[in-house]
Amino acid sequence: MSSTAGQVIKCRAAVAWEAGKPLVIEEVEVAPPKAMEVRVRILFTSLCHTDVYFWEAKGQTPVFPRIFGHEAGGIVESVGEGVTDVAPGDHVLPVFTGECKECPHCKSEESNMCDLLRINTDRGVMLSDGQSRFSAKGKPIYHFLGTSTFSEYTVVHVGCLAKINPSAPLDKVCVVSCGISTGYGATVNVAKPRKGSTVAVFGLGAVGLAAAEGARASGASRIIGIDLNPSRFEAAKKFGVTEFVNPADHDKPVQEVLAEMTNGGVDRSIECTGNIKAMISAFECVHDGWGVAVLVGVPSKDAEFKTHPGNFLNERTLKGTFYGNYKPRTDIPGVVEKYMNKELELDKFITHSVPFSEINKAFEYMLKGEGLRCIIRMDG
Amino acid sequence: MSSTAGQVIKCRAAVAWEAGKPLVIEEVEVAPPKAMEVRVRILFTSLCHTDVYFWEAKGQTPVFPRIFGHEAGGIVESVGEGVTDVAPGDHVLPVFTGECKECPHCKSEESNMCDLLRINTDRGVMLSDGQSRFSAKGKPIYHFLGTSTFSEYTVVHVGCLAKINPSAPLDKVCVVSCGISTGYGATVNVAKPRKGSTVAVFGLGAVGLAAAEGARASGASRIIGIDLNPSRFEAAKKFGVTEFVNPADHDKPVQEVLAEMTNGGVDRSIECTGNIKAMISAFECVHDGWGVAVLVGVPSKDAEFKTHPGNFLNERTLKGTFYGNYKPRTDIPGVVEKYMNKELELDKFITHSVPFSEINKAFEYMLKGEGLRCIIRMDG
Ligand SMILES: NC(=O)c1ccc[n+]([C@@H]2O[C@H](COP(=O)([O-])OP(=O)(O)OC[C@H]3O[C@@H](n4cnc5c(N)ncnc54)[C@H](O)[C@@H]3O)[C@@H](O)[C@H]2O)c1
Ligand SMILES: NC(=O)c1ccc[n+]([C@@H]2O[C@H](COP(=O)([O-])OP(=O)(O)OC[C@H]3O[C@@H](n4cnc5c(N)ncnc54)[C@H](O)[C@@H]3O)[C@@H](O)[C@H]2O)c1
Ligand SMILES: [Zn+2]
Ligand SMILES: [Zn+2]
Ligand SMILES: [Zn+2]
Ligand SMILES: [Zn+2]
Repeated sequence: MSSTAGQVIKCRAAVAWEAGKPLVIEEVEVAPPKAMEVRVRILFTSLCHTDVYFWEAKGQTPVFPRIFGHEAGGIVESVGEGVTDVAPGDHVLPVFTGECKECPHCKSEESNMCDLLRINTDRGVMLSDGQSRFSAKGKPIYHFLGTSTFSEYTVVHVGCLAKINPSAPLDKVCVVSCGISTGYGATVNVAKPRKGSTVAVFGLGAVGLAAAEGARASGASRIIGIDLNPSRFEAAKKFGVTEFVNPADHDKPVQEVLAEMTNGGVDRSIECTGNIKAMISAFECVHDGWGVAVLVGVPSKDAEFKTHPGNFLNERTLKGTFYGNYKPRTDIPGVVEKYMNKELELDKFITHSVPFSEINKAFEYMLKGEGLRCIIRMDG
Repeated sequence: MSSTAGQVIKCRAAVAWEAGKPLVIEEVEVAPPKAMEVRVRILFTSLCHTDVYFWEAKGQTPVFPRIFGHEAGGIVESVGEGVTDVAPGDHVLPVFTGECKECPHCKSEESNMCDLLRINTDRGVMLSDGQSRFSAKGKPIYHFLGTSTFSEYTVVHVGCLAKINPSAPLDKVCVVSCGISTGYGATVNVAKPRKGSTVAVFGLGAVGLAAAEGARASGASRIIGIDLNPSRFEAAKKFGVTEFVNPADHDKPVQEVLAEMTNGGVDRSIECTGNIKAMISAFECVHDGWGVAVLVGVPSKDAEFKTHPGNFLNERTLKGTFYGNYKPRTDIPGVVEKYMNKELELDKFITHSVPFSEINKAFEYMLKGEGLRCIIRMDG
C-alpha cells in the first residue's frame, strides 16, 4: 500500500475552465477511489482530436470546468473496494470506453460496446455516486470520458483500465489508448484484408495512418491513401501507403477514380475522416462480390448515409467499428504486446513531445494540423 | 449419344408473344447446342416472380416474343463442343446466373457474381453468337435469363447448369434453382445466425420463407416474420416463424417495435421484400454491437437507402446477397443433398401443380398471391 492510499492527493492538473481557452495548470485535490475505482498516477499522456473537439465545444455539450485527456499510460497508486484485477504498482492504460465483463456486450465475442461503461462524452462525474473526484479552489472539476488524464493523478473505473506488460515504455504505448487502436483494429479486426489485397484508407490523420499500418501488417500489396489535404501524403509513405488520391484533383467522384485504378474496386476500404461524403465514397469504392468497407470517423449529428441498395445486393458489405472492436481489458494488453514484438510500429506516430507545463503547445500543434501525436510528459 | 443429338428438335414451348398476354403453347424448333452449350430436356419447372415481372414488363425492358422460365429440373439431351462437365443423361438444374470458373469472381471464395455469366435480364440470345436457339413459325423466339425452361427442350450455357444427384426427385428439387436457394443461402451463407439467436425476416413470400427455413435449420430460437399482408402469417408457421409483426398495426417504425420485443434489436435480419422502407427497417432493427442485416429483395431503380451513419458505428453490419451467395455449379448440388438428407425441407414450398398445357394457371395463382410455388409438369 502506498502511503497516499485512502487520502486526498494534491497534485497538478491542466484545467479547462472555459471552452476554447488555454488550459491552466492548477493544484487540484484528487479524492481516493471508491468501490470498483482505481487511482492512477499518470506518467505520459497524449492529445487526441476528441479532447480538442470537446474543449472547443462547438456543437458539443459544454461541460466546464473539466480535466481533459484520454490517451495515457500510468501506474496504479491505490484501488477502491472490490477491485481485484489491478493492484498498486501495475502499469495501466486508461481507456475512454470500458468493459464490465458482465453485460450482454461484454459477454458477446463480437461486441465491445459495454452497456455499463460505454463512452459517454457528456458525463463529467463518476458512475457510482454521480460525483467528481477532482476539485480545485474548493470547486468540483468535471471528468472527461472517465479518464481525465491531464492530471498527475486521476480516478478511473477499473473496467476502463488495461493492465499491460510493465516492461512496455509508457511514453510510447500511451498512444495505444485511443486513436491508434481505433485505426489499427478497424483494419485487423473488422476489414480483415487478405494478404496481397488492395486497401483504400480515407483520411490520413493518426487514425487513418493506424488503419494503413494495419493494412501493411496484414500484407496488403496496395494501400491507397485518400485525403483532401495533400500535405498528408508525404508522411503517409512511412505507414505503407503506396498511392495517393486527392478527391479535389478529379472531376468525377473519387469512388469512380478508385474503381478505374483497381479494375472495379478495392478489396477493403476504411473511412477515417468523419465526413459523410467520404463515408459514401468509401462504401461505393469497394469491389462487388467481396468488397468490405468499414466506417470509423464520427459523423455530424445530422449526417445521412445514402446509397442505392443495389450496391449492397452486388455483395458489398458495410460495417462500422467503435474503438477498432477491441475490448479494453481483454484485448488492449495484446496490442501492447504487438508493439513489444515489433509487429506494430508506434514510434512513427509520435512526432512531438512537450513537458506538462507546456500542454497548450500540444493543442496548437493539433489545431495547425502539425504532426500526429504529441506526448505530454507529466514530470515536466 | 441420343438420336436427336446434332439435330433440330421440334417440341412444345409456352411462348409469351406479348407483354402481359397469356402464354401460348406452340411447336418450336430448338437448335443443337453450340460450343460450351448444353441442350436439356426439361421435366419440371416452376414459376417465380421474376418471370411474372418480365412478362408484365412494367418498368422492365420488353423483349418479346420470349420463352420464360428459370426454375426447373431436367436431363441433358446433348452437349456442344468443349463441354466436359456434363454428359447426356445427367440430371441438372438450370440457373439464371452462371459460374465460368475462370473469372476473378469465380476464383474468389467470396463471390458468386461471375463476370461472364452474371444474370442479364435484357439479353434474349446466347452469349457465343448473339443468336437465339429457339424459333416458332419461322421467327426467332428470345431466351430469358439464359434458361427459358417453359419449353420441353432448352439450350443453356454449361456454366449455368448444376449437375445434381440423379436420385433426387426433379419435381421437388426444381425449386432449388432460384428463390429457395436465394432465401436459404441469405441466411445460412450470409447472415449466419448462431444457435439460439433471434432472427427477423422481412417479407414472407417464398424467398422470405426460405430465409426462415435457413434460420430454423441454423437453430435460431426466435424467428420473427414481418409482412404487410396478414394472410402470410398462417403459412409462415410451417417455416419456423414463431412471432409475427405487421408494420401497419403500429404507429411507430417497425424497427422500434422489434427493438422493444427483443431488448435492443434482433441478432440477424433478412429483407426479402424489394421494398426500400423494409430494407431500412431491416437494417435499423438489428442489435448494436453484433447485429447483421442482409438485403435480398430487388429494389426499384430509383430507390435510395438512407440511414444515420451512427447506426453503422455502433457495430451493425449491412450486407447484400445475390442468389444466396451460392455458386451455381460448385454449391447447388450440395443444396440438393441437404434436401436428400432431410436438412432442408422443400415439399412445404410446393403448394400447387399444373400440367404444362395449363401453365397460365400458375401465373394466375401468383398474381392472386395464392400459395408459394406451382410446379409445372412438362409431360402434361
Ligand atoms: N470510432 C472511434 O472509436 C474513433 C476513435 C478516435 C477517433 N475517431 C474518429 O476518426 C476520425 C479521424 O480521426 P483523426 O484523429 O485521424 O482525424 P484527423 O482530422 O487528423 O484526420 C482526418 C483526415 O481526413 C481528411 N478528410 C476530411 N474530409 C475528407 C474527405 N471528404 N475526403 C478525404 N479526406 C478527408 C482530413 O483532411 C484529415 O487529414 C475522426 O472522425 C475521429 O472522430 C473515431
Ligand atoms: N437477390 C436474389 O438473388 C433474388 C432472387 C429471387 C428473388 N429475389 C427478390 O426477393 C424478393 C422476394 O421475392 P418473393 O418471390 O418472395 O416475393 P413475394 O412478393 O412473394 O413476397 C414479398 C413479401 O413482402 C411483403 N412486403 C412488401 N413490402 C413490405 C414491407 N414494406 N414490409 C413488410 N413486408 C413487405 C409482401 O406483402 C410479400 O408478402 C423480391 O424482391 C425478389 O425480386 C431476389
Ligand atoms: Zn459490459
Ligand atoms: Zn481519442
Ligand atoms: Zn466467372
Ligand atoms: Zn426466380
